[in-house]
Amino acid sequence: MSSSTQKEIKVGILGATGTVGQRFIQLLSTHPYFRLHALGASSRSAGQTYAAATKWKLATPIPEEVAGMVVSECDPSVEAFGECGVVFSGLDEKVGEIEDAFRRANLVVFSNAKNYRRDSLVPLIVPTVNPSHLSVVRAQQASLSLSKGYLVTNANCSTTCIVVPLRALELAFGPLKTVMVTTLQAISGAGYPGVSSLDILDNVVPYIGGEEEKIEWETNKILGGVTDGDDGFDLHAAGPGPINVSAHCNRVPVIDGHTACVSVAFQSGTKPSVEEVKKVLKGYKAEVVELGCPSAPKESIVLHEAQDRPQPRLDKDLYAGAAVHVGRVRECNVLDIKFVCMLDNVRLGAATSSVINAEYAVVKGFIQ
Amino acid sequence: MSSSTQKEIKVGILGATGTVGQRFIQLLSTHPYFRLHALGASSRSAGQTYAAATKWKLATPIPEEVAGMVVSECDPSVEAFGECGVVFSGLDEKVGEIEDAFRRANLVVFSNAKNYRRDSLVPLIVPTVNPSHLSVVRAQQASLSLSKGYLVTNANCSTTCIVVPLRALELAFGPLKTVMVTTLQAISGAGYPGVSSLDILDNVVPYIGGEEEKIEWETNKILGGVTDGDDGFDLHAAGPGPINVSAHCNRVPVIDGHTACVSVAFQSGTKPSVEEVKKVLKGYKAEVVELGCPSAPKESIVLHEAQDRPQPRLDKDLYAGAAVHVGRVRECNVLDIKFVCMLDNVRLGAATSSVINAEYAVVKGFIQ
Amino acid sequence: MSSSTQKEIKVGILGATGTVGQRFIQLLSTHPYFRLHALGASSRSAGQTYAAATKWKLATPIPEEVAGMVVSECDPSVEAFGECGVVFSGLDEKVGEIEDAFRRANLVVFSNAKNYRRDSLVPLIVPTVNPSHLSVVRAQQASLSLSKGYLVTNANCSTTCIVVPLRALELAFGPLKTVMVTTLQAISGAGYPGVSSLDILDNVVPYIGGEEEKIEWETNKILGGVTDGDDGFDLHAAGPGPINVSAHCNRVPVIDGHTACVSVAFQSGTKPSVEEVKKVLKGYKAEVVELGCPSAPKESIVLHEAQDRPQPRLDKDLYAGAAVHVGRVRECNVLDIKFVCMLDNVRLGAATSSVINAEYAVVKGFIQ
Amino acid sequence: MSSSTQKEIKVGILGATGTVGQRFIQLLSTHPYFRLHALGASSRSAGQTYAAATKWKLATPIPEEVAGMVVSECDPSVEAFGECGVVFSGLDEKVGEIEDAFRRANLVVFSNAKNYRRDSLVPLIVPTVNPSHLSVVRAQQASLSLSKGYLVTNANCSTTCIVVPLRALELAFGPLKTVMVTTLQAISGAGYPGVSSLDILDNVVPYIGGEEEKIEWETNKILGGVTDGDDGFDLHAAGPGPINVSAHCNRVPVIDGHTACVSVAFQSGTKPSVEEVKKVLKGYKAEVVELGCPSAPKESIVLHEAQDRPQPRLDKDLYAGAAVHVGRVRECNVLDIKFVCMLDNVRLGAATSSVINAEYAVVKGFIQ
Repeated sequence: MSSSTQKEIKVGILGATGTVGQRFIQLLSTHPYFRLHALGASSRSAGQTYAAATKWKLATPIPEEVAGMVVSECDPSVEAFGECGVVFSGLDEKVGEIEDAFRRANLVVFSNAKNYRRDSLVPLIVPTVNPSHLSVVRAQQASLSLSKGYLVTNANCSTTCIVVPLRALELAFGPLKTVMVTTLQAISGAGYPGVSSLDILDNVVPYIGGEEEKIEWETNKILGGVTDGDDGFDLHAAGPGPINVSAHCNRVPVIDGHTACVSVAFQSGTKPSVEEVKKVLKGYKAEVVELGCPSAPKESIVLHEAQDRPQPRLDKDLYAGAAVHVGRVRECNVLDIKFVCMLDNVRLGAATSSVINAEYAVVKGFIQ
Repeated sequence: MSSSTQKEIKVGILGATGTVGQRFIQLLSTHPYFRLHALGASSRSAGQTYAAATKWKLATPIPEEVAGMVVSECDPSVEAFGECGVVFSGLDEKVGEIEDAFRRANLVVFSNAKNYRRDSLVPLIVPTVNPSHLSVVRAQQASLSLSKGYLVTNANCSTTCIVVPLRALELAFGPLKTVMVTTLQAISGAGYPGVSSLDILDNVVPYIGGEEEKIEWETNKILGGVTDGDDGFDLHAAGPGPINVSAHCNRVPVIDGHTACVSVAFQSGTKPSVEEVKKVLKGYKAEVVELGCPSAPKESIVLHEAQDRPQPRLDKDLYAGAAVHVGRVRECNVLDIKFVCMLDNVRLGAATSSVINAEYAVVKGFIQ
Repeated sequence: MSSSTQKEIKVGILGATGTVGQRFIQLLSTHPYFRLHALGASSRSAGQTYAAATKWKLATPIPEEVAGMVVSECDPSVEAFGECGVVFSGLDEKVGEIEDAFRRANLVVFSNAKNYRRDSLVPLIVPTVNPSHLSVVRAQQASLSLSKGYLVTNANCSTTCIVVPLRALELAFGPLKTVMVTTLQAISGAGYPGVSSLDILDNVVPYIGGEEEKIEWETNKILGGVTDGDDGFDLHAAGPGPINVSAHCNRVPVIDGHTACVSVAFQSGTKPSVEEVKKVLKGYKAEVVELGCPSAPKESIVLHEAQDRPQPRLDKDLYAGAAVHVGRVRECNVLDIKFVCMLDNVRLGAATSSVINAEYAVVKGFIQ
Repeated sequence: MSSSTQKEIKVGILGATGTVGQRFIQLLSTHPYFRLHALGASSRSAGQTYAAATKWKLATPIPEEVAGMVVSECDPSVEAFGECGVVFSGLDEKVGEIEDAFRRANLVVFSNAKNYRRDSLVPLIVPTVNPSHLSVVRAQQASLSLSKGYLVTNANCSTTCIVVPLRALELAFGPLKTVMVTTLQAISGAGYPGVSSLDILDNVVPYIGGEEEKIEWETNKILGGVTDGDDGFDLHAAGPGPINVSAHCNRVPVIDGHTACVSVAFQSGTKPSVEEVKKVLKGYKAEVVELGCPSAPKESIVLHEAQDRPQPRLDKDLYAGAAVHVGRVRECNVLDIKFVCMLDNVRLGAATSSVINAEYAVVKGFIQ
């Protein structure tokens, strides 16, 4: 598919005024495939212009053509949403049922919320890991008697960070047995207003509600396969196990960029060398990159050799925040290999994942 | 020993103007056993009053009686040092040989530097874990033909944080097999000026030089035993192993207080329950507490039930920074048990450990 | 009055679970005059123990004897409140009418809210500046036909910071003509959750709603006098003018401690020398200090000679946060003299002011 | 002059590995007029590739074509420097004499250091304020018998921030009488390693050495005129006065972006209205913008209407950091008008100023 000849696809955003919604606006205002057409927010915002309704918190200004667009409610009966080829949702878990209403109105929804991630008919896709899981939407459509609409989720931001290098390792060295991960997560992961400054300035909060369970469970679904016949995900296999994942999640005073310290052991019992691991990480080619999805990063994994990298503030912006950064690859005294990885939690960890997933869907013919 | 009847012991401080030295001044200016008598610093500072020579960085003022004391060089031939019953050293590794000169001048030295921690005749003591290792100084004296002088080290601040709960667990559930630890360390651990603000504001640095090796090695010496006959430490046993420790160390934008996320497995193969572990941690009684060492905390381990604690800024000050805080005790999917622990890295993690160790030495008759 | 012989006065706290309320708990749990007797909070908290109802955010633990006290609603008909000799209010402006209900129930109320500060019969007192304004409560009682109850307010935290040195200067060099002030204010001034971490980390917010007006207005009432006959404050004189105050207020990423850069000109037209100003600031004796009010600081103004002080993190804790710190006294090219001042905004800037004001009221016989 | 037809000018950078030098690399690696040709640093770095010699601290990677360039010493006899049409200096004041050696070697030097700013023959130029002062270099060349070489300085970062709006006001409302300014300055202004994290995390430092004097003096030279005959600057007039400037400078925990709170009075005695002032600031057109200098911002002054803007983190990146942001324009109770302004201190406050100044010099024929 050539971006120059294709017809632009109208897109809508649910939760357009929120933290993830603002990233969607930023990513989509100049997108080669997609054109912003409908913006949905709470009834409090509906009827106002986007500029008036939004506490814009990004360091680039609101795109001029978006500032004057009128925000509507998040309702599939709004005409502008009905005209959309894709609806991106930055809604959080509390309003997740809205996404289902959009799907049942025969619309294609790419969701950031956790609500449907565990559904056996809903793909949970990290674009540089398992976009082929998109195939399951056919079974989803069949089960709901929908001709066009379906729902796809992307993963929790911390899960996304670790599964990209884990996928590369698994392809090279065989199935994983155990994964230990400790995260140092940015405040933007909690949305706005989110974390009180009194809680996090000069401090660490060693707990993020529900986060550890998400990492432990989602890793298995993402790295697991679809059932024979493409008719869903074998969730019994998907958690707990077959990969034993143990997570500890911390909030730290960082604005954007989640860091994770990871140790991994393989089922084979054979420990690859540090040099082999580095070579595999460096050489990893994600399908979305090879297909030329416009928002896919040039490198899915950026391997750092400097012993004090990656660092969130210095590294997250590379490739518009769409890569996972890996560094400090070394032997682990307890498991086989350990390393540190980092991603931009509000870009690849949220909005960018949805956008690349949708680009893949366009390229593969899942969006008309 | 009664603090009211005892004769005060004159003490000196090496590196008195530095980060750890300032904590020594603060801790010792009103101490029931010890009286500040000699302050040593670099030749640049020698001859000046303590107030003039020091960039004081604590939130309590310089004690009045110390402000006017004249700083001398760190030389055992300085008369005031010769009169000291104990010399506390806040010197860093670069000037560690000075400590040896003091010891060879027949002085008792309690050191925070890493230089002698691996010496088979030098005790490496965390006061609420293994003060009985002090007995080895007799063999040290014999080997150097010293009648009175010896050198004792305390542990790296992060090692100190984890060995206190590990010791409690080991006593209750038997020897440890493996320990996984990821630290989130405060900037004060790097001294002053230490970490550049441009490196750490809104950032994580996933590397601290030499720190991981210290944790992996020191844990084994501290939790290991002395040889039969009290004539040293069996360093072959002390590292690597018998406990496999794997550490990942990060610097975070926190002023004081190191946090560590720890997972542990026991040699027994039997996983204790979360409730048993909590009971053991809560009930742990360190010998220095039972002996009434004045700077020992009322509780060696403070067990937190709130799911988002301990937090460095809110919890570190309890018991004047002399406790280790443990929270979030739960099962680990990979090893047996996991938890988070936190200590004040410049108090129990440095100066306070030296002081309690010296108090123990006084009580046990190792200081005349 | 001797604190050893006096009868303890039962006190209540309104808004006991909030940011200011927690400071009241901390200050009053071991107070020589006052004994905590009634704790009021929202109806949501009423009926719970204080420990259960409160997200305690201080670095010292909840005092043991308070943890189990049961919280009631902020209603003067609650019996325990009726027994109180003083009620301290940490309520914010939104619920200020509750304070009036307590006063009308013939209770003595010391308030931190802004609601009654501009009332011509309500004293606005900074304890180390104008406690004698308390005399006006007699006229207040008369106007409301109250035998015992009255309401006293303390000032906005930033106003408090500047009026202490301004009072010292005014006493020495005559009436002030103009004051220019730019503040750098801590996040704790906005309460909890207050400022979102996404708004303030690595940032400055050059605006705090209503703050500039408070500084410009309150300074005149505090430094102004009571009318002849002690029957109120001449509010026409109190603002705008006679002192022209121009304020610019900023929020900065500091937890506790407001800094203010101040320039001042005198009506006399004679510029005092820097040395004269320093001498006056250093020598300033507040009446509450001379009277021995237990929470009054040893020095009302701490004068710093180091050119880079005062600094909030290093200096605020002195005298339990009850002093104002002044430094960098120098000539101003535009007005007469300039300096920087700093106070602990949640102690002298809030709860501590109320407590010292109440201590003064006890000593002066305004509380039976 | 058309950028498409012009011959590229070879440029060198002094202090290429430092904080300002890194910004020069970033700005010049894709510049339409200039091509990086010579990189100078300390003798310690000389002979290494730029990538090896530099602790790169920007969030964009080292440009590929620069990474492999070999660094030389800062010596005008190095052949590559001799071939440069412009030499940009990011050296600090300690090595300022090197800049003079380059000038005397007949090279054109644009300096960020303070050393020559007060020289009566050296222009002190803020590009969006007084580029026409460049004309004085002819007198400078004459005095040193140079055919081609000269030296131009740009201003202190905080001075730059305030003179842009002051210039707009002066043009509209006549000469300024007094200016009061309080700054809240970012840590990057102190270079690397610069400010210790222990000094600035959770803190304000109310002092920056030499900064207040620079603002008070430089403002007069920049807003003053050249002498008749273009033969220099009348430094008697330039300071102190005719504008009385009083500055108070603070360091705050912000990475990039200096904020300044400014009050100003005009000589005319007539106070313009807030609306007039806003209109003037919004309408200000700098000559470098009108001339199309490639690095000049689309708007020299960005006027903010939101009451809590500008904010350094959110606003500094607009126009690649080349604008000054102004907000909160309002009446001042003491002087005439007050406002807050903010700029990116390492871009327009340093490297970007030099680059635009050099672009102006190219356009005006001062560089062959």
